[in-house]
Amino acid sequence: MKPIDFRSDTVTKPTPAMRRLIADAEVGDDVYGEDPTVRRLEERVAERLGLEAAVFVPSGTQANQIAIGVHCRSGDEVLTEEGSHILHYEGGAVPALWGVQPAPLPGERGILKPETVAAAVREENIHNPRTRLLSLENTHNRGGGTVWPVDRFRAVVEAGRKAGLAVHLDGARLFNAQVAAGKPASAWASLTDSTAVCFSKGLGAPVGSALAGKADVIREARRLRKRLGGGMRQAGILAAAALYALEHHVERLAEDHANARRLAEGLAQVPGVKVDLSRVETNMVFADLVRPAAEASALLLKQGVLANPTGPHSIRLVCHLDVSKADIDDALARIRQALAS
Amino acid sequence: MKPIDFRSDTVTKPTPAMRRLIADAEVGDDVYGEDPTVRRLEERVAERLGLEAAVFVPSGTQANQIAIGVHCRSGDEVLTEEGSHILHYEGGAVPALWGVQPAPLPGERGILKPETVAAAVREENIHNPRTRLLSLENTHNRGGGTVWPVDRFRAVVEAGRKAGLAVHLDGARLFNAQVAAGKPASAWASLTDSTAVCFSKGLGAPVGSALAGKADVIREARRLRKRLGGGMRQAGILAAAALYALEHHVERLAEDHANARRLAEGLAQVPGVKVDLSRVETNMVFADLVRPAAEASALLLKQGVLANPTGPHSIRLVCHLDVSKADIDDALARIRQALAS
Amino acid sequence: MKPIDFRSDTVTKPTPAMRRLIADAEVGDDVYGEDPTVRRLEERVAERLGLEAAVFVPSGTQANQIAIGVHCRSGDEVLTEEGSHILHYEGGAVPALWGVQPAPLPGERGILKPETVAAAVREENIHNPRTRLLSLENTHNRGGGTVWPVDRFRAVVEAGRKAGLAVHLDGARLFNAQVAAGKPASAWASLTDSTAVCFSKGLGAPVGSALAGKADVIREARRLRKRLGGGMRQAGILAAAALYALEHHVERLAEDHANARRLAEGLAQVPGVKVDLSRVETNMVFADLVRPAAEASALLLKQGVLANPTGPHSIRLVCHLDVSKADIDDALARIRQALAS
Amino acid sequence: MKPIDFRSDTVTKPTPAMRRLIADAEVGDDVYGEDPTVRRLEERVAERLGLEAAVFVPSGTQANQIAIGVHCRSGDEVLTEEGSHILHYEGGAVPALWGVQPAPLPGERGILKPETVAAAVREENIHNPRTRLLSLENTHNRGGGTVWPVDRFRAVVEAGRKAGLAVHLDGARLFNAQVAAGKPASAWASLTDSTAVCFSKGLGAPVGSALAGKADVIREARRLRKRLGGGMRQAGILAAAALYALEHHVERLAEDHANARRLAEGLAQVPGVKVDLSRVETNMVFADLVRPAAEASALLLKQGVLANPTGPHSIRLVCHLDVSKADIDDALARIRQALAS
Repeated sequence: MKPIDFRSDTVTKPTPAMRRLIADAEVGDDVYGEDPTVRRLEERVAERLGLEAAVFVPSGTQANQIAIGVHCRSGDEVLTEEGSHILHYEGGAVPALWGVQPAPLPGERGILKPETVAAAVREENIHNPRTRLLSLENTHNRGGGTVWPVDRFRAVVEAGRKAGLAVHLDGARLFNAQVAAGKPASAWASLTDSTAVCFSKGLGAPVGSALAGKADVIREARRLRKRLGGGMRQAGILAAAALYALEHHVERLAEDHANARRLAEGLAQVPGVKVDLSRVETNMVFADLVRPAAEASALLLKQGVLANPTGPHSIRLVCHLDVSKADIDDALARIRQALAS
Repeated sequence: MKPIDFRSDTVTKPTPAMRRLIADAEVGDDVYGEDPTVRRLEERVAERLGLEAAVFVPSGTQANQIAIGVHCRSGDEVLTEEGSHILHYEGGAVPALWGVQPAPLPGERGILKPETVAAAVREENIHNPRTRLLSLENTHNRGGGTVWPVDRFRAVVEAGRKAGLAVHLDGARLFNAQVAAGKPASAWASLTDSTAVCFSKGLGAPVGSALAGKADVIREARRLRKRLGGGMRQAGILAAAALYALEHHVERLAEDHANARRLAEGLAQVPGVKVDLSRVETNMVFADLVRPAAEASALLLKQGVLANPTGPHSIRLVCHLDVSKADIDDALARIRQALAS
Repeated sequence: MKPIDFRSDTVTKPTPAMRRLIADAEVGDDVYGEDPTVRRLEERVAERLGLEAAVFVPSGTQANQIAIGVHCRSGDEVLTEEGSHILHYEGGAVPALWGVQPAPLPGERGILKPETVAAAVREENIHNPRTRLLSLENTHNRGGGTVWPVDRFRAVVEAGRKAGLAVHLDGARLFNAQVAAGKPASAWASLTDSTAVCFSKGLGAPVGSALAGKADVIREARRLRKRLGGGMRQAGILAAAALYALEHHVERLAEDHANARRLAEGLAQVPGVKVDLSRVETNMVFADLVRPAAEASALLLKQGVLANPTGPHSIRLVCHLDVSKADIDDALARIRQALAS
Repeated sequence: MKPIDFRSDTVTKPTPAMRRLIADAEVGDDVYGEDPTVRRLEERVAERLGLEAAVFVPSGTQANQIAIGVHCRSGDEVLTEEGSHILHYEGGAVPALWGVQPAPLPGERGILKPETVAAAVREENIHNPRTRLLSLENTHNRGGGTVWPVDRFRAVVEAGRKAGLAVHLDGARLFNAQVAAGKPASAWASLTDSTAVCFSKGLGAPVGSALAGKADVIREARRLRKRLGGGMRQAGILAAAALYALEHHVERLAEDHANARRLAEGLAQVPGVKVDLSRVETNMVFADLVRPAAEASALLLKQGVLANPTGPHSIRLVCHLDVSKADIDDALARIRQALAS
């Protein structure tokens, strides 16, 4: 029985076309700035995001962390929605690497209101950390793969700007937002000081992310990348796959979104499973279960269906390049059987 | 018109008796561990808190921060109620000095539930910061000067212990809790790995706090105190006043509590002012105002009444050694007049 | 005119054989520990170094930094030779990422004496940083590509152990030492708590390093790798090339060493150039020049010879996979011509 | 037998005159900026040092560390003489608190040359920490209590300025330099961005230091003081003694210097003791011993003479307010006897 892996869109394997490009990639020493494929990727990313420059890094975590390191200094505070990736999945890096305090703000499915941001900015006072950065996430993972409406995004960014904050966007899944909203990624990214995008999630490249931003932000980012050990030599090997993904795998995210909806609708019919269909905006499905999540995960695993718990009674299923429409129907059958027992 | 200063219990001035002791203090070089007055104070504090040892430091902020530095390492997480002093009034020190991420937990008037603590402990996983410390505050300042019921405190500490957490108590106003609850300070402190107490708040000493804890915690604390620049030489000058305060100013906190209640009841009668009397547990009164807090503060100031805003329409009034019962009545009259205009 | 690039052994491009393996690599999500090629590489490295486990990372800098982060905590001190890579080429990461103070020790061509180490260990005292780690480098880059004699290495490690220090080896070019000394890499590495090796220097792989060590060191290293953003997904793409390099490119380092000697002997004949031939132990040649180094570099560049200045009147030339014996002779001719002008 | 304590000039006890001023000090809450005695002290210090503003802190370590924190950010490098206090006696704070790398420079008795500073400044390059600050020490403790000639100081400061560095002066014993050189403290301090002075060393106050500097430096310093836990409430108690010391104990340092010379000349006659008389510039005497320093210290202690070892065969003796000329003669007799055994 072929496993169907819904744990994350990070599990995708490079396609044959990607592998060919990887094998043939023109490379150089990127620490010296001499890898032509990396350069091309960085230019392409900056263009697509409507920002001045970009830098290639090994992971989404590093892209976000470098941005925080560029914008903040020790003792500063970063405002971010309380379920954001930088708070929960980056190993405590915000304080550990930069001495920066995260201020978790309540949002709705990961989306903030301008007034929440405005109210969270601290006054200048020796007792206070200095509020310096607003970090947003689009799509918002723990919010459900939620897409920020562009108008709301702009209003929240403006609330930050008004208070003198820099604005970073964790756009690890920004291209999912692009496809779901029918707006270019730059509609959000160009409003920010820095935006991180990831090639190894929905886009299906094996490794890599980029941080884009103003030219001086990216110049300093190269320095911090080196310090974090993200300077790679013939990184064109990886950039070739990322370039391909950027050219060929953005539009197809629509399939993942359609599959997620199909999966969600199917799951909603399974006894003991509840799905809020209104929350399925992109490639993720969050399901609430009568059974404990750990038990449910184990039962699914026996049927070759992989999914991660996200709470005591909830699991997340993520659709991606390596899950087809047929896999969805197959998975639903297996899930029904697994949870019937 | 003599000003009546309700901004904080930190504003008290040393009494003549204290000044005499300060002048006559037996001193030595405390960095070499040779100041007899400091030693005596440290022993006395450890005894009263039911802990093995203590170290004298210049401020409550330093006492808390040293504790966090002893218990945690970079990349760890500290669970703490969302309104706690370490989050809001210590200049972002938790991440800036130690690389530690604060996880703000929702409480009721600063008091947590055991299940909230248990649910916030993260599993061991490379994505996660490591939950290492639980930091509580008693009385809880932003909660309203709230006293932790001992049973609740014990249950919450046990929830932390069960998850392998160290437990710190910010007891800057722990003696207010002692007097209000009629239980010795050790009822809370002896359950912890470290407890900070402050001599320059309600106790009325000019300068100084202590961190008490297990012997090895305090040994390491001396090292961190030096690193933070808290090693002072002939600190017996300060410790003499603190010792006096510890002997003579604890029981009298009852007067501050009575004054706070009198003030609260009076304020509740003033038009445009709302006070939740059930929240007045110790020496603090939080009042909600129809007027903007900044405007109200300014009007009060003209009448010689000083109080700090704590929100857009709320102010805090703190009773202490330098505010008498007569001052309360006087202040109420002035406040009525100020806000009538 | 084909450029001959002596700037560093990092500039090598993947060979056709490597590219084929890269294209065909069996991969998985390495953040979940599921990339079989990465796993195989990690096992192979641990074996070769005589250590329990290993972890794949994007760069030598990250391998070293993770080791420092595992062994030390903020306020500790690391003893290291004064010309070491961690001091000069890692962007200030030792203090910036970990709060650790480097104590630079005088060595001879990068090689320390046991008594130097013993004398540098600080006593336990609140004034002192805590000496916690000894970090060595083999071959030693700024020392001249120097090989640590195994006996000296053992004696220095023992001096560290006796003082309770952990020992890390920056073995970015450890396989050069293996080939030059005719001893297995494990002769040095197995004496340490952690050893970093690099695949993208002399071994010629495009990207990647590994940190090997005791099992618990590597377990914690995976956590810190995530925090630094070194967790990569289908990293088998890179590991495949590294595995190949480890199998096929170690013995051939002897050619680079022979080429370096040939180059050094030739350079020693060039007017205005001085080379200490006794210092040419592996693949590096350091030349002292009458002319300013920047001027000399520019003249060489015009002749298509690339070399980095290492001081006001000195340059470094590094031999590697992409420089043949014929290139050496060609380069010497060009250098003679360039510097004759 | 009355002990004669040469361990440090920090061991002095407040005089009766000081104690009276301490007892009568006019105080306020200095965290609110309302302690008039602290304010007066800060103004007086700024004036004397020829700088715009000053801030009172609990210790010399904190004064230095705050300066480093104001001038640098994480990843920066501070140039400092290799024996400086910030490297050896501040608990590793430079990296631990600020993520800053110290670059120890070779000096002569703690005095640097301009060309040493110029050569140590790193070029702008992603591999490098960023050289940001030059930190000097006058008098230089480990150098022997050495006084920086003003011209040399100016030349070294200029070398730093030319490279864009900020300049800090650790002037814990700057008034010893003033008295020894017959130049005002401002001759050095006014050339810097920040200067730390200490009241509890030669000046004999019980507790406290000040950091002086440009107005914006001191504004930020107040923020960092709070973060480090150096914000004290009625600190006028301490400032009163410091003010007195500044008025009455500067000129008398000449006595300590004369005593140190007398002690040095006497010691030079003791068999088994060597003193370089040319090194005795202020209040410190460094003696080299035939015996191990620990053994010598123990023998001296039996005779009631206290002195700290500074190396395997060397000890330091410091003259101060609590050691009279008669004590010197008495001490010499005891030392002769102790070491004769």
